Amino acid sequence: MEKVNLLAWANEGNISVPTFLITQFKNLKLTESELVLILQVISYQNKGNDFPTPEELSTRMTTSADICANMLRTLVQKGIINITDEYSPDGIRFEKYSLQPLWEKMIDYFLLLKKAEESTIKRNSED
Amino acid sequence: MEKVNLLAWANEGNISVPTFLITQFKNLKLTESELVLILQVISYQNKGNDFPTPEELSTRMTTSADICANMLRTLVQKGIINITDEYSPDGIRFEKYSLQPLWEKMIDYFLLLKKAEESTIKRNSED
Amino acid sequence: MEKVNLLAWANEGNISVPTFLITQFKNLKLTESELVLILQVISYQNKGNDFPTPEELSTRMTTSADICANMLRTLVQKGIINITDEYSPDGIRFEKYSLQPLWEKMIDYFLLLKKAEESTIKRNSED
Amino acid sequence: MEKVNLLAWANEGNISVPTFLITQFKNLKLTESELVLILQVISYQNKGNDFPTPEELSTRMTTSADICANMLRTLVQKGIINITDEYSPDGIRFEKYSLQPLWEKMIDYFLLLKKAEESTIKRNSED
Repeated sequence: MEKVNLLAWANEGNISVPTFLITQFKNLKLTESELVLILQVISYQNKGNDFPTPEELSTRMTTSADICANMLRTLVQKGIINITDEYSPDGIRFEKYSLQPLWEKMIDYFLLLKKAEESTIKRNSED
Repeated sequence: MEKVNLLAWANEGNISVPTFLITQFKNLKLTESELVLILQVISYQNKGNDFPTPEELSTRMTTSADICANMLRTLVQKGIINITDEYSPDGIRFEKYSLQPLWEKMIDYFLLLKKAEESTIKRNSED
Repeated sequence: MEKVNLLAWANEGNISVPTFLITQFKNLKLTESELVLILQVISYQNKGNDFPTPEELSTRMTTSADICANMLRTLVQKGIINITDEYSPDGIRFEKYSLQPLWEKMIDYFLLLKKAEESTIKRNSED
Repeated sequence: MEKVNLLAWANEGNISVPTFLITQFKNLKLTESELVLILQVISYQNKGNDFPTPEELSTRMTTSADICANMLRTLVQKGIINITDEYSPDGIRFEKYSLQPLWEKMIDYFLLLKKAEESTIKRNSED
């Protein structure tokens, strides 16, 4: 039994996300609930479910399926996630949540911070 | 400049947490805000700050330092985190947030789920 | 250009493996080359290629495709990896390298080490 | 006992490295053994040992301490790792292996690949 459970635990695995997303979510205009919803989307996608329903997401959140559906809509409107059409090797269409817009926003904000740092350093060295 | 920024990005690194914590935080009696606070504690500890202040934590949360202090107190009371005394190699005492109680709760709950699954399987096979 | 490259870098992502695999591969009767080959299999599978060919693997190794094919055979014979038949949602069969046997060996060895530690502690406390 | 072992396993944790390092180590002029040695250095550093000895490293490799010492020297000569002097908060000096040169080489090579891709695309679109 012990081996079975250890294997099951090992198979659960880890979720790995950029530190920058965790430390800067507020500056990316996300709330705590939205960040956690995004982590749930990632957890489903890691296990092969690319388009989890609001019902599925709500089983892992303290909020109802309706509120999850609202949050997803808000995230799409804010340009954080989008829904893409994908095709399986044999031509069957399926939908997928893409986090590509979030990664882009993250990189934009990272470059903005670096530019700000740089101009601070320049200004200080000119004093 | 590009190389400098890419290196800086690579150095930011990733945060890796058990998938089970993300998918089961609700069943561990945590809220979304508490989960995110825990992720901030981990992000500080990964960079060598073992005992981030409520002020430091609040810079990465949508909530004030007072509310972060309250949440930390609640997490200690719920037996999710505790504060341990550590000693540096040269005998200087320092405090540290330990997430060991959370990992224990997580394992307890995982084993409980496995036991429940097992007895369901048994019952079904006896029908 | 800079944003494009940072995004590309972020999309490369990370490979995350159990620390125990890295620190104990020798005791699991693996060589350095076999460990690295396993990491290549994981890297291909993470990007959706479940059954990389010896040719594909050899582009990421210092060894030829023939030697990679030999190593794969050896890993199958040693019970480290196996080849499983999978079916896509629409019934098309495909082959996949499964690392499940390796995870099992890892857990077995971990439990063996723990048992050995435990009996050492017992013996010492009886002296 | 089962809980103790599951906790011990969970505490072993994961090692997370850039996918690019795993897939491109050959192009960074590393051998399989050198890559695995670097992973051992990372595994020691993750657990707080910043300067593992050749003897410590050899316990996790199929090669002797002498050969590990040679490999470390080669890696320093090739500009992959270097040894930095660090100071603890109370002024005690200690040595540390730094992988910063490797990360720089990795980024350099990544940018080189991107430039090559770009000029290929340009050339093709001019045809």
